[in-house]
Amino acid sequence: MKHLLKMNELTIEEIEQILSEAEQFSKGVQWILPEQTFVANLFFEPSTRTKFSFEVAEKKLHLEVLNFEAETSSVQKGESLYDTIRTLESIGTKAVIIRHPEDNYFETLREKVGIPILNAGDGCGNHPTQCLLDLLTIKQEFARFEGLKVAIIGDIRHSRVARSNAEALTRLGAEVVFSGPTEWHDQSIPYGTYVHIDEAIQTADVVMLLRIQHERHGGATGKNAKDYHEQFGLTVEREKRMKSSSIIMHPAPFNRDVEIASELVECERSRIFKQMENGVYIRMAVLKRALQSVQGGALVCQ
Amino acid sequence: MKHLLKMNELTIEEIEQILSEAEQFSKGVQWILPEQTFVANLFFEPSTRTKFSFEVAEKKLHLEVLNFEAETSSVQKGESLYDTIRTLESIGTKAVIIRHPEDNYFETLREKVGIPILNAGDGCGNHPTQCLLDLLTIKQEFARFEGLKVAIIGDIRHSRVARSNAEALTRLGAEVVFSGPTEWHDQSIPYGTYVHIDEAIQTADVVMLLRIQHERHGGATGKNAKDYHEQFGLTVEREKRMKSSSIIMHPAPFNRDVEIASELVECERSRIFKQMENGVYIRMAVLKRALQSVQGGALVCQ
Amino acid sequence: MKHLLKMNELTIEEIEQILSEAEQFSKGVQWILPEQTFVANLFFEPSTRTKFSFEVAEKKLHLEVLNFEAETSSVQKGESLYDTIRTLESIGTKAVIIRHPEDNYFETLREKVGIPILNAGDGCGNHPTQCLLDLLTIKQEFARFEGLKVAIIGDIRHSRVARSNAEALTRLGAEVVFSGPTEWHDQSIPYGTYVHIDEAIQTADVVMLLRIQHERHGGATGKNAKDYHEQFGLTVEREKRMKSSSIIMHPAPFNRDVEIASELVECERSRIFKQMENGVYIRMAVLKRALQSVQGGALVCQ
Repeated sequence: MKHLLKMNELTIEEIEQILSEAEQFSKGVQWILPEQTFVANLFFEPSTRTKFSFEVAEKKLHLEVLNFEAETSSVQKGESLYDTIRTLESIGTKAVIIRHPEDNYFETLREKVGIPILNAGDGCGNHPTQCLLDLLTIKQEFARFEGLKVAIIGDIRHSRVARSNAEALTRLGAEVVFSGPTEWHDQSIPYGTYVHIDEAIQTADVVMLLRIQHERHGGATGKNAKDYHEQFGLTVEREKRMKSSSIIMHPAPFNRDVEIASELVECERSRIFKQMENGVYIRMAVLKRALQSVQGGALVCQ
Repeated sequence: MKHLLKMNELTIEEIEQILSEAEQFSKGVQWILPEQTFVANLFFEPSTRTKFSFEVAEKKLHLEVLNFEAETSSVQKGESLYDTIRTLESIGTKAVIIRHPEDNYFETLREKVGIPILNAGDGCGNHPTQCLLDLLTIKQEFARFEGLKVAIIGDIRHSRVARSNAEALTRLGAEVVFSGPTEWHDQSIPYGTYVHIDEAIQTADVVMLLRIQHERHGGATGKNAKDYHEQFGLTVEREKRMKSSSIIMHPAPFNRDVEIASELVECERSRIFKQMENGVYIRMAVLKRALQSVQGGALVCQ
Repeated sequence: MKHLLKMNELTIEEIEQILSEAEQFSKGVQWILPEQTFVANLFFEPSTRTKFSFEVAEKKLHLEVLNFEAETSSVQKGESLYDTIRTLESIGTKAVIIRHPEDNYFETLREKVGIPILNAGDGCGNHPTQCLLDLLTIKQEFARFEGLKVAIIGDIRHSRVARSNAEALTRLGAEVVFSGPTEWHDQSIPYGTYVHIDEAIQTADVVMLLRIQHERHGGATGKNAKDYHEQFGLTVEREKRMKSSSIIMHPAPFNRDVEIASELVECERSRIFKQMENGVYIRMAVLKRALQSVQGGALVCQ
């Protein structure tokens, strides 16, 4: 069973295979299963990018899509996640894509369910397809990871992206540095070092900004948006001091004029919308990987 | 017009025809209308199984599916169910699948609308596709209904399943017995007799458990889950005293360790997930029946 | 870029072109893009007719449909409409259909986005596809606009339909009169004259009733439904005094026995459900217009 749950469960070879498949899809290669195949999207938290990106990926692979809405389901009657997945499996679903507010929700499921789970985000835990699309965007730009310096800036502690990206990038040979408010540092991440925001921005090849997650802080951060922007954001001033070949990334949704100056969102260095485009190809690649593991049989490749 | 509203409106021949069609679909037979055909799912109550089961059935028949969400529709502006259906009919919908909290919501509609209604559950009233999938599951197991003893256990009074199943099984030649808390007995059902839980479980060929519907009781049942399980649930102890060839059924969602011991949900005798799988084939069969009645013309069968 | 935002941005020739295309679609003509093409429906207000009408139109054109639900999207995290559209564009969407509570929400977007916006209703502002389907319904009936008298009756001020229809009909050569409660007159509309309800109904070729929008009045209208019906509604009495060839229209959802006597909703003169059917063809026509402007290339017409 080819679940996709956490980045650190993928070998370097598997990561490279997924990136390579995604690049094929970005060039228009098609992969279509010979039989009508159902997948289900289970999103227990709001999402635009990840949800629609998966849905576009699924439809480009000509899969049949079931969009599960937690509010109108039997979860309202107390049904567990395991029983929901078994139900979907019973009616013919071949893979489930899940976003859930609970960290590592999948640990109680991974050995018990009969179909692959693709993790679309768990609490403050993991978000492997986001990490993979970040890697693809970096690889497209620099054609390598070795020797690159990647600065991850902002709310490290509550980010699903920081840890996964730091771990994967380090394994792939890049150097990771962190920057952001001290109270959001996360000393449990065994990769990367903390540096001053100005150093981070001036020396990095990739400036990766993280979103302030208002909905996870319950409004009690005490951070004023303007102050944050001055202290830890990518201001127009700071962008001018970036290296000439460096790029800007952000997993989005972004808070304009907080993490990033509004006029930089679509500037020449920004790869923010490119990341979103790449998200579709990465999700096609991981869906192919998962479905190959359960479907077997001949596949139509064009 | 081939509405599907209540089991007691189907003749024995019609029931057998639907079961036979469903068995064909379970074997991979396809039925595809020659023209692009739209159907709409209108669910005014939470559902996972029934809703997705219909959606999978629809997509296996290559129908175009409109998923109506009550919360984001003009029902919010006070539009009636009749006007909503007429609207869907006007824009080209050929059948509607409806779940609604009101008992017999369809009585004011059945003579007035121009497209078939497939009832996916009305209040505490009917749930014909659930009944039909139960019948299919029993038929697959025993190849007959005559002489079988079916025990329906639990919240008889508030169940959409108890009455329909009792009526249909009796007509088909099976013997029905009920068991459960006295306050949930329903003397208005003219079929079956009430017996002690232990007798029911030890003598039945089919032990059919019903869900305690917390959301319909408003929490005022005074039932403690553990007490209920001991008194009226299928405990691990009771399962050991079932006849060797007997099977366990439950319409789901089930409350683990209330109606049924958690470890029995997927035991060898359990047909709970088989029921869900059969739900897809039954819904394909009733959709075919309904659409044949309005579409006419040649059909592509493979 | 062929946005469709307001009726007064369409020339007479463009209106006639859309009506002509819609008539072709009503006769079964098909238009299919050679490549898999995604569109997204973004409805920030409840809708049944417009939403499903667009969805049916999209599926008849074999487009891939993304249904965006504001409640389960990153709009919950504060994402702006512009950033949402750019996101959808990045993942491959070729057009967006938007209903939004804010008047002229599109003014800040029209020059900035890279894909066409089809306005499915903005606040109390515009609703161009409703206007176009009204025009199609009138044209089918009378084969002309010149010399026709159209009475628009009811809540003129809060209607998205009154102004657009008055403007377009006047340009097309029809005479427009208004009627309704004085406090709902709208002197900012430079077309049409206000007349007494009885005069309007007895002299018009088209009696177009508008819905009382309870949800926009916050219940503070002070209007009693029965009084309104007597004073400004199309009663059974008033209908008898309509010209023999005159027709009744209503954009729906209608309040039975308020704007219109319940028994007149489906009377011989009523084109209310015909309007809904025509809505599908109009939306196919405007989708074709929008997608032709971005897709280019060869098209499969049958």
